[in-house]
Amino acid sequence: MDASGELRVGMVGYAFMGAAHSQAWRTVNRVFDLPLRARLTAVCGRDESNVRAAASRLGWERAVTDWRELVASDDIDVIDICTPGDSHCEIAIAALAAGKHVICEKPLANTVEEARSMVAAAEAARAGGVRSMCGYNYRRVPAVSYLRQLVAGGRLGTIRHVRAVYLQDWIVDPEFPLVWRLQKDKAGSGALGDIGAHIVDLTQYVTGQAVTGVSALTETFIKERPLPSASSGLSASGGAETGTVTVDDAALFIARLSGGAVATYEASRFATGRKNGLRVELNGSKGSAVFDLERLNELEFYDGTGPGAEQGFTRILVTEPDHPYVAAWWPPGHGLGYEHSFTHQMRDFVEAVATGKDPEPSFADAFQVQRVLDAVERSSASGSGWTDV
Amino acid sequence: MDASGELRVGMVGYAFMGAAHSQAWRTVNRVFDLPLRARLTAVCGRDESNVRAAASRLGWERAVTDWRELVASDDIDVIDICTPGDSHCEIAIAALAAGKHVICEKPLANTVEEARSMVAAAEAARAGGVRSMCGYNYRRVPAVSYLRQLVAGGRLGTIRHVRAVYLQDWIVDPEFPLVWRLQKDKAGSGALGDIGAHIVDLTQYVTGQAVTGVSALTETFIKERPLPSASSGLSASGGAETGTVTVDDAALFIARLSGGAVATYEASRFATGRKNGLRVELNGSKGSAVFDLERLNELEFYDGTGPGAEQGFTRILVTEPDHPYVAAWWPPGHGLGYEHSFTHQMRDFVEAVATGKDPEPSFADAFQVQRVLDAVERSSASGSGWTDV
Amino acid sequence: MDASGELRVGMVGYAFMGAAHSQAWRTVNRVFDLPLRARLTAVCGRDESNVRAAASRLGWERAVTDWRELVASDDIDVIDICTPGDSHCEIAIAALAAGKHVICEKPLANTVEEARSMVAAAEAARAGGVRSMCGYNYRRVPAVSYLRQLVAGGRLGTIRHVRAVYLQDWIVDPEFPLVWRLQKDKAGSGALGDIGAHIVDLTQYVTGQAVTGVSALTETFIKERPLPSASSGLSASGGAETGTVTVDDAALFIARLSGGAVATYEASRFATGRKNGLRVELNGSKGSAVFDLERLNELEFYDGTGPGAEQGFTRILVTEPDHPYVAAWWPPGHGLGYEHSFTHQMRDFVEAVATGKDPEPSFADAFQVQRVLDAVERSSASGSGWTDV
Amino acid sequence: MDASGELRVGMVGYAFMGAAHSQAWRTVNRVFDLPLRARLTAVCGRDESNVRAAASRLGWERAVTDWRELVASDDIDVIDICTPGDSHCEIAIAALAAGKHVICEKPLANTVEEARSMVAAAEAARAGGVRSMCGYNYRRVPAVSYLRQLVAGGRLGTIRHVRAVYLQDWIVDPEFPLVWRLQKDKAGSGALGDIGAHIVDLTQYVTGQAVTGVSALTETFIKERPLPSASSGLSASGGAETGTVTVDDAALFIARLSGGAVATYEASRFATGRKNGLRVELNGSKGSAVFDLERLNELEFYDGTGPGAEQGFTRILVTEPDHPYVAAWWPPGHGLGYEHSFTHQMRDFVEAVATGKDPEPSFADAFQVQRVLDAVERSSASGSGWTDV
Repeated sequence: MDASGELRVGMVGYAFMGAAHSQAWRTVNRVFDLPLRARLTAVCGRDESNVRAAASRLGWERAVTDWRELVASDDIDVIDICTPGDSHCEIAIAALAAGKHVICEKPLANTVEEARSMVAAAEAARAGGVRSMCGYNYRRVPAVSYLRQLVAGGRLGTIRHVRAVYLQDWIVDPEFPLVWRLQKDKAGSGALGDIGAHIVDLTQYVTGQAVTGVSALTETFIKERPLPSASSGLSASGGAETGTVTVDDAALFIARLSGGAVATYEASRFATGRKNGLRVELNGSKGSAVFDLERLNELEFYDGTGPGAEQGFTRILVTEPDHPYVAAWWPPGHGLGYEHSFTHQMRDFVEAVATGKDPEPSFADAFQVQRVLDAVERSSASGSGWTDV
Repeated sequence: MDASGELRVGMVGYAFMGAAHSQAWRTVNRVFDLPLRARLTAVCGRDESNVRAAASRLGWERAVTDWRELVASDDIDVIDICTPGDSHCEIAIAALAAGKHVICEKPLANTVEEARSMVAAAEAARAGGVRSMCGYNYRRVPAVSYLRQLVAGGRLGTIRHVRAVYLQDWIVDPEFPLVWRLQKDKAGSGALGDIGAHIVDLTQYVTGQAVTGVSALTETFIKERPLPSASSGLSASGGAETGTVTVDDAALFIARLSGGAVATYEASRFATGRKNGLRVELNGSKGSAVFDLERLNELEFYDGTGPGAEQGFTRILVTEPDHPYVAAWWPPGHGLGYEHSFTHQMRDFVEAVATGKDPEPSFADAFQVQRVLDAVERSSASGSGWTDV
Repeated sequence: MDASGELRVGMVGYAFMGAAHSQAWRTVNRVFDLPLRARLTAVCGRDESNVRAAASRLGWERAVTDWRELVASDDIDVIDICTPGDSHCEIAIAALAAGKHVICEKPLANTVEEARSMVAAAEAARAGGVRSMCGYNYRRVPAVSYLRQLVAGGRLGTIRHVRAVYLQDWIVDPEFPLVWRLQKDKAGSGALGDIGAHIVDLTQYVTGQAVTGVSALTETFIKERPLPSASSGLSASGGAETGTVTVDDAALFIARLSGGAVATYEASRFATGRKNGLRVELNGSKGSAVFDLERLNELEFYDGTGPGAEQGFTRILVTEPDHPYVAAWWPPGHGLGYEHSFTHQMRDFVEAVATGKDPEPSFADAFQVQRVLDAVERSSASGSGWTDV
Repeated sequence: MDASGELRVGMVGYAFMGAAHSQAWRTVNRVFDLPLRARLTAVCGRDESNVRAAASRLGWERAVTDWRELVASDDIDVIDICTPGDSHCEIAIAALAAGKHVICEKPLANTVEEARSMVAAAEAARAGGVRSMCGYNYRRVPAVSYLRQLVAGGRLGTIRHVRAVYLQDWIVDPEFPLVWRLQKDKAGSGALGDIGAHIVDLTQYVTGQAVTGVSALTETFIKERPLPSASSGLSASGGAETGTVTVDDAALFIARLSGGAVATYEASRFATGRKNGLRVELNGSKGSAVFDLERLNELEFYDGTGPGAEQGFTRILVTEPDHPYVAAWWPPGHGLGYEHSFTHQMRDFVEAVATGKDPEPSFADAFQVQRVLDAVERSSASGSGWTDV
């Protein structure tokens, strides 16, 4: 941050995630009272005309075509990494070495090795007051944050069961083209790393337990797809030639967690009708809870300690002033949307930087997720045998 | 608009509605491609230090304390009225006379007479290319806009039944103080004008039918309340002295619509557990639909023309690119929130101004709502007798 | 009852209601421990071969063609009236005069006058230990009985709002024929008496308040229909000739209740997609509740007295042993169906007869419902003016 | 069957399952037109006074204390086995050898070996026209039967994903006693065989695919429990001494099915708040469907082939005359309950016997389920390695 109380951001990447982050950076100080004011200083992309257009539309002051330029700039305090996973490691390590705070989209990296080196870089930089964070934004959906509070407060008792799915259906059509998210060299993995990573992080966060071992299978239902004529985020139009899908369409695993819970996990892009179907259920010795991202303003909570005849799942509308993040927004019942999770993420990041604390999830937290994903792939590759994380 | 392609906005009022409008003005050009770019030129409020703070927080370039100054400013193209209803008429008429485009929060005015004079002013200004619009923002929730499309496309057939409630519970506690929304001279009416107005407008909009007559009752359950020590939007803390509640707590009416439908309407601030419970159901000769604001990314649609065994209410997640407004935002299933209805409203307003068209709802549309509210009050005052609008 | 501990039933009518009652009589002693055992002694219908077939199928020992024969039989203790409303009065009064206990399907009668004379007959017979009851079976859905307990126990506080609909769609098709339920001389009224009666009784029962006045409208959307070639309960096939529909298709009214609540009621057979959509919501000063007959094993309860952040509508699965009637059936979560409300009704009737108590709802309770329906018709006929019950 | 057109049933066991079967046998001919009439000839239990009381309450003509007496009786056509799993094999084989038709509760047996010998006995008897069936009653919930029709008709396309849970919570309390269902020698297994068996059968039935391999884990959360002072079905009161729980509390597995689908399965008695939470979701290339036993009159169906903007999960109320089994019951929207699945099962069994066809599920079908359960146990015992069925 400079003396003016600003936190000057340089963002790398401006597609889906870049747009979401931009909306968050633009909004965060308009809604929350914070000690630093975010400034959308520069955005970076490889194509000059495209990145200029993006800067204009999304509200960034200048556009650059080389992320190294951002890392080297004096007027940048934060590097916000919104690129595909294959470039996270190089950018993050360079940025940290340059003394820039880093916020890096999930998954932290495409391989455990990259992730490990990023953790080391973050640890080293931390000594110099440089902050780093991985962008598991769903932690900051108010209902998820509130669920974490309920569990931490003992309201569910000992957690016995975790049941987590993240279901989408955007590639059910065999003619959907081979976009970068279906290529292992760019994306690292398929449904597993893209959306499976979210439910691993989210369940570890809300339970306070780590996945310790898994037994897994992965599947690629459609093995050849048309090459894309042009790719843009999640959608694209296909051409005549085809290529091989090198990532999983779906990943399923059973797991054990460090606190004694057993779990099922499933991530799929072939769940027809499920658009963004992240659903997590916890069953504990005292209570249970269910979160569904398609109804993100709600949390279902079962309190098993009250009078039996009155027990049931309570649909809590997580829009009250005493719910996390909510007081800054609208009156009760006036729901938030997907993008607000990013605004909350930036709120906490800005506050952490300003107050000299380490934001969460740290690179180390994200590395743990990466190790779980790695165990899933190893188990799947070895006939679903039990695999320790 | 000036030659630079900007649409320079002056907003009057900066409380709940002002914050929502600010978020919309800041966001609209970041998400939608529009021929004009909104500029947050000035905000107006009576208390100088408060309005300065609001300008800084909400992102307005300057703060003024007299709305007449905004109306007289050369660098203002649009007056955006976010004050309580008792000042709408005077501000709007002055702004229109000064050639400013006007967007005015609902209800249009506190009385039919005021509303009528505003319509006349809008009609007069229109001849000179000046645009006006009333802020019934819920029309622009994608699910509501889409419902309008379904009805207009004949998918529900002849509408037989309209069933609309808008239920809140923020004054159930008798100790909740006598804020301005509970005072007839400021607010015009209570639940009726504040939230009942929304369901009248919304149902008239989606059905394309006008309410022609009503039979109504209104009720004030708690007739004396503590005077507020300080008031701020929907919440306040009460003091020791009390005053008389001069507005309705709840309004209930049955109605007939111009196309032959019969209807029930209910607006209440005493519906314990309902935070922002706007729910509308339409039953037609071919199909039915249900919208619930607490789940605003969804629309339930019943298609009565398909195979009988497969019929049922379909929960449409209104987050697909071919749903109204949605393509500009996030991928399917990544829901929007309350505030987005305002961004959509500003999108349509900006486009109307830029292309020289009249935005909807017009002041005349809003006047029709006002006349329905007036008929409700007259019916209630005369023992619930049938009252033509 | 005779010395053998049997309660010998003679049932008049064997269509939809007769089948439901038969299932209840057959089952009641198999599930509940009761001091008397119901015996399905005789069933009555006008067509000899049809009534014989019904007796065989439904399990009645003998079939008769004249209800007077049943009333005169020594081996009949109870007359169970399942005919259309136009014959209730004559049969019930004769049966009571003959010292038979009477259970009469709702609505009690087609007119207030008939209902009044039935009440007088019941009062007279009561002196001689003869019991009478009207068949508002939904009171005995466990979730409804439990809701009554919650209200009576003060869990909702003072009831402010009642919101009740009973929506069906079986005559939306204009070609659906003119069955007896669409003829005023047989059915008394249309949606109002058939299903509107249920929500009036149910809401008066659960709130403990009586409807004291209404403002109403009724509508007949389709005024001419094909004459039925043959009629059977709710379904029939139409012929070429047409006749005039003499009952309402829909009835809507607002009301006040004796305890200060205000209410909306709506009954319709034109609510496309709603098959048996009885839905009741109560809002009180301390809590709220919702019951929906299409999900009859559930009750939604909002407890407004707990910690704010945890409040919400709790979906209670009313299948626990400490819920009314449930302990006699299956383990938790193993839901009941529509027919069980009749079994519970017979359980309470048998117990009342055996223990010499008056079962509820009494004819007087049902007469009060009849007076509400009459006020609705009078209000509707007089331009929706307020009409005291 | 004897010449009188009766099918004379002898039932072994009269607890929870016996009560459910009794209700079904009593009701089946009252609702369905069938070529044979079931007669509740005899019930068998070990304790003479208890079985006499049960016969009287449940409506059986005589009570016996040795099942061999039933098997030897000339006036018994069907042996209905409702005992715990450890006695299924012996009774069924003896009954089949005696030429009695057999309906046997699930799971077919406690071990694969027993189940295999039962299949052999059934095959042998079949040559002589003797029928056998296993009681996976949930196949006959109308919504499940209808789901099978949708899948068989190709409405879901190729099934990609199966997601099945059966969740209960009746032993969450560590003080709940060690009833027979928690003892391996009586029950064979815990949640796995009791409720996991249901979801294996149900998903194999509706998909038409067989589970071919699994990777599994099982868990017993509470390893010591009080010995029961007296046991009765699902509930019991505990004493001071304790014993070891020898069955699983929960079983989780991932699986592959013969048609290429991948699946997750979970059965647990520790899912706080879930009373009878059987939930199955199928995702296919053309559509998806969800069934939830706690709302058994509903089926959610997603048709992925229609106009994109109108797609969504349709909540079908499976209460229409053209849904399986429904025409015999009540009008649309008048829902059925848990017990009706047994009545439908008996309907199909009676019809199969009368028409000389083999009812489903056959012992061989149930044996396949048994083999899946066995694979689950073997996988769990061997560190969750992949295990072929």
